[in-house]
This record gives sequence, C-alpha cells and structure tokens, in this order.
Amino acid sequence: MAKPNIYQQVDVQCISEKYPIYIGNHLLSDHTLLQRYVAGSQVLIVTNKTIAPLYLDNVKQAFAGIQCNDLILPDGEAYKNQQSLTTIYDTLVNHHHHRDTTLIALGGGVIGDITGFAAATYQRGVAFIQLPTTILAQVDASVGGKTAINHPQGKNIIGSFHQPQAVLIDLQTLTTLPTREFRAGLAEIIKYALLVGGDFLNLLNTVLADGFTVKTPQLGDLIAQCCRIKANFVQVDEREETGERALLNLGHTFAHALEAITNYKRWLHGEAVAIGLYCAALLSYQLGHIQKSTLELVNSLLSAAKLPRRIPKDIDLSGLQALMFNDKKIKNKMLRFVLIKAPGNCYLDASVTTDCLHHVLKSAVEGETNEC
Amino acid sequence: MAKPNIYQQVDVQCISEKYPIYIGNHLLSDHTLLQRYVAGSQVLIVTNKTIAPLYLDNVKQAFAGIQCNDLILPDGEAYKNQQSLTTIYDTLVNHHHHRDTTLIALGGGVIGDITGFAAATYQRGVAFIQLPTTILAQVDASVGGKTAINHPQGKNIIGSFHQPQAVLIDLQTLTTLPTREFRAGLAEIIKYALLVGGDFLNLLNTVLADGFTVKTPQLGDLIAQCCRIKANFVQVDEREETGERALLNLGHTFAHALEAITNYKRWLHGEAVAIGLYCAALLSYQLGHIQKSTLELVNSLLSAAKLPRRIPKDIDLSGLQALMFNDKKIKNKMLRFVLIKAPGNCYLDASVTTDCLHHVLKSAVEGETNEC
Repeated sequence: MAKPNIYQQVDVQCISEKYPIYIGNHLLSDHTLLQRYVAGSQVLIVTNKTIAPLYLDNVKQAFAGIQCNDLILPDGEAYKNQQSLTTIYDTLVNHHHHRDTTLIALGGGVIGDITGFAAATYQRGVAFIQLPTTILAQVDASVGGKTAINHPQGKNIIGSFHQPQAVLIDLQTLTTLPTREFRAGLAEIIKYALLVGGDFLNLLNTVLADGFTVKTPQLGDLIAQCCRIKANFVQVDEREETGERALLNLGHTFAHALEAITNYKRWLHGEAVAIGLYCAALLSYQLGHIQKSTLELVNSLLSAAKLPRRIPKDIDLSGLQALMFNDKKIKNKMLRFVLIKAPGNCYLDASVTTDCLHHVLKSAVEGETNEC
Repeated sequence: MAKPNIYQQVDVQCISEKYPIYIGNHLLSDHTLLQRYVAGSQVLIVTNKTIAPLYLDNVKQAFAGIQCNDLILPDGEAYKNQQSLTTIYDTLVNHHHHRDTTLIALGGGVIGDITGFAAATYQRGVAFIQLPTTILAQVDASVGGKTAINHPQGKNIIGSFHQPQAVLIDLQTLTTLPTREFRAGLAEIIKYALLVGGDFLNLLNTVLADGFTVKTPQLGDLIAQCCRIKANFVQVDEREETGERALLNLGHTFAHALEAITNYKRWLHGEAVAIGLYCAALLSYQLGHIQKSTLELVNSLLSAAKLPRRIPKDIDLSGLQALMFNDKKIKNKMLRFVLIKAPGNCYLDASVTTDCLHHVLKSAVEGETNEC
C-alpha cells in the first residue's frame, strides 16, 4: 500500500474553533490521522453507492476498535433531501449513537452537506469529519462549515453553519472521479480565479490551456490555494453577515435557480455554476462594469474546462427568474448579485432590476447572438 | 384595552448575543415592544389551534404595516415532529420569506421549540421571538435557546442551539390556561426549587401549601425568578458542554422516556417531569444520598401541585429502561443522571448501574410499598 503523505496544511480559524485541512496523497489510508479527530467511541460513516465500493472499507479499517456504522445513500444532488436526512437520523438512533459520536462524510458535496447538517442537528450538534472525494467538494463544499439540504423549491434552503473537526483531502480519490465530475469541479476553481485574479488566475489560465486533468502536476497546489482563498473569506465573515463571504456565491444565484428548475437532475452543481458564472459576467458586461475582453476571458476559461456556459432553449426563463427570488442573499426583498468589476474585484450589487435580469437571461440562452 | 405593563426584565448573556426576557401584563398588546425586535419586513407567526382564537389577531395587529403570515398547527407534543417542521418550511418558502424574516412563536413549549428549530435552520438561521403562553414555556422552554423536534424514538433528538431576539412573557395568557396545563408547569418550578433550594424553595413551599393558582399574587415574581435561575445556568454553559446546564435536566431522563413510550400522548411534558422528579429523588434516596425526609419533601411538593408521581402499572419497565439509553446526556455509553444530595445541591452522576435503575423504576410503580 502506498505511504500516506500530507504535503499541505491549511488552518481555518473560525469564531470559536480552529480546524485543519490536510491536502495529500493516500490520506484515507492514514489511520492515525483519521483516528486523531474522533474523540468518542462511536462513528457513523455516510457515503454513497459510487464511493462505497472504492473507499469505504479503507476508512472503516481505521475504526476497527470502536463502534463503526455506515450508511450508503444513493448518488446525486436529487438525494440531498429530507428523506436522506431522515435516514441518517434513523440510523443514528437505531444504533444508539450518543452526543459524543462522530459523523464522517465520505463523498462529494452532497454527502458533505447532508452529513454536516445531520451532525449540526443530531442531539443539537455532534462532531463530524469531511473526507471529500470530488474536486468540487475539496475546493469548496468541504471548507467553511456550510451544511444544508435542498427544498423542492430552492437549493440549500434548510441548513446550518457547523464546522468540521478536520478536512482530509486525499488527492488519490480524484483518480477514480469521472471526467464529467472533474470538469464540474473546475467551475469553482474558475470562480476563485475571478474573485482573486492575479497570479492565481494566470496559473489557472496556463493550466487550463494545457488541458487540466487529474495528472496536471499543479493539481494539489491549486486545490490547496483554493482552500486558502476560501478560508480567508470564511474567517472574516463566518456566518455571511457582513457581505464578504457572500462574494463566494459568484454565479450561484443563477446556478441554484437552474438546478431547482431542473429538479437537481440535469446538471452537476459545478456545471450549473459554470452557466451561472457566464451569466454573472454577462450581467456585469451589460451593466457596463467590465469590458468585452473580460467577458471573453470568462467564456474562454469555462470553454477550456469544457463546461457549459449558455442556458438551454427549453428552460422557462420566467420560471427561472421566479426561482431566483428564493435566493438566500435577498435583503429587503431585493436580489443581491455578485458582480465583476475586474478579476480580483467583485462586489455585491442590490440594484439589479427585474427588467435587466430578464434581458440578461434572454441573451444567455444558447444560440442568442447578443452575447460573447 | 388594559395598558401593557412590564414589571420585570431578565437579561440573558450568551456567548455572542444578549437578549431580554420581559415579564409583565398585556405584553401581547404592546405593539411597540413587539415591533422593536423585528428587523426586516417579513414575519411568520407560528401558533396552534388552541391559542390562535385567543391571541393571534392581537399579535398580528402589531405587524399590520409589513408582510405578516401565520401558520396554525395542531395542538400537542405529538405534533412536535418532522411533519409540522416541514409545514413551517413550506409556508416560509411559499410566501418567499428571506433571510431577514422573523419567526414568532406564539404558544407553549411545543410551538416554541419547533418554531425555534425552524428559525435555526431556515436559510441557515433567521431571527425569532418567543411569546410563551403556558407557565411551562414561560419558566423553561422559552429561555436558553434550546430548540428541537422529537424523533419517534426519543424526545428532542433533532435540534439546535439558537437564541431568540427576545422573550415576552405576558402573564395574562395564563388566565386562559387550563388547570391541567397550569399544574404541569409547576413541575418545572419545583425542579428549580430543588436545584437552588433556600429562599426560593421556602417561598414555593408556602405558595403550594396555600394552593398555587393563576391568582396567586407571587406568580409573576416566581416566574421571573425561574427565568433568572435558568439564565444563570445557561450563561455559564450555553451549549451544555461543561455539565452545569445539564443539571437543568433533573428528572428529565425519566420524563423523556415516559413521554416516548406513550408516544407523547398520555402526559403533558410537565406531568412526565413530575414523575421524573419523583424517580430522581427515589434514586438519590436508594443510593443513600438523601434522607427519607427529602424524598418526602419532593413527594409533598408534587402532591401539593396535584401532579402525578408514580409510574402507572401498565408501563413496560424494560421498554422504558431501553428508551432511557437514547438520552442525550449519555457519555462513553454511560447514562448520566442528575441526582440530589440536598435541595440546592444536585450533581451529575455517571455511575448508576442498570440493576440499580431497574430497581428504582420497579419501586416507583404505583402501589409499590417500597417507596415514600
């Protein structure tokens, strides 16, 4: 068996707690590391049907000496719902898990979010560990303590802030990730590049131009940098109260509505984010904030990652717009969009009119020429 | 209309927030006071079928100028479940409530707990106000930020810590409270008296001996003192981490199991707590911690409040004991009981054996002579 190897550590300092993110190879085989973050004598590993055959036994071996239960959920965003959550609660109750249990999320963003929310609310809060196995979960979902399930009418409508004890990012898990999932994860990396600009954007641009795959040598460094960027946003505004953390939602107001209108079945989250990033750039362009060249940059980054950018013709734009008003960033009944002034300079705008929004959605539809 | 009149205020200082509890008369008619704790332009009032005809219109009038929705749930502990919670979420989503909405809990402990949990988890946390209308909710459930719903196999198994913006205790609401509910509330007041002893116990003893009713002149003072006692426990251990707050669960390990085994239908929570207090005293007595006279004092306080003390013969004691092992205070697989050394001197004991517990349950059954 290959030797576990941590080569980066990012610490997240939240209001009342601090926890480490480890980035390395074969970390799921590092039993000592896994055991270090389990304080009690009970563990529930929550995973899905795709991940279980690949990694579940490996993780279970670390907890051979204590009560270790597992729960295998169906795979996909459509299952990030109340029913799956109830299954987790039932498993915990039926196996008599107490307040000193630890939940372990082994999987992508869906598993991390739902397991984190179960941990936030079982017996008013128990410990949990994130073992993200997709690039999207590694750079975004597993960091920062946002947990949630979806409501039929809106993404992440029901949730909590609940920080994990630790996040272990095993880069080896990406070798078994389907290409479509790998690309979807790149959407969040592109989002970070637009938020911070500079060297990170330049590096990503180069890597994408060369064809970004799991074999790209800079993969681990890019993931660690994304974790560091996200940790910086989270540390200054853990509960999204002052507005800084809300910038991480660049593209997401569009993406969440696109996911909801297709019942979370048509796109992977990252794919919806890719379309959302394009829409946010188009909105910024139509409001005169950015030059055509910046819109083209966003388009070319997404295109190089082989991600969708346009809204398909069959999507009902009125329905989509209505769903956007379920967004969590609404304040005083006004939608707040994260807009781009330049790479590295994004801001929260509460002045976008419904007419303007309608116009942007229309021109983002595939085949429309009034666009980049 | 009678003039609103605040005559006591208790401040609760939690880790990151401080909020007031107002105790007075006709506070539900004090529109200025109600409005002060609503920051946004949306309100959802959650209440039940018993309370709605009495007070809902009154409270709604305070929010005539903004979006004010209401939801009327069935009355009773049996409805403190996932289904009612889902109804609250659906109402919020269907009426497009945003993150700056305020939930208002108008009712007893069930309404307060479930509305508080909805507020804790809708859009990862929104504001809420407690308007407790039962003596039990006024002295206990509305103070301290514990929110929850029940799981079929255990009370308050799913929940959060989420502090309200304010608690408004309108003593007038007790005039419409059925006698059975009033008495049930006294169980929690007796609990506080056993926890702190001294003058408070003496006062309560006197009041109970005279026949404690809604007309008792010391009613408001006793409620305010209970809030102060509870606030003191909460302030030193908000999230029940160090053990101090767990003392507030005196009698509750027994009570929660009694409620669960009867599907939350047979007793009001306070009635189950009354039996639980007797069981806790009996356990303390059988372990040699208290004299017979203290056990007799507990029995006579509960008797003066016309509350049940014994476990009915038809309860399956093995099933009851099994349910106790779903308790949230379990640590390292050991049940932890709050035991009495003397009034004003209670402690958390993790050494009670299952044999000893079985013996106590058996001798607490009605008709058993091996008791007080």
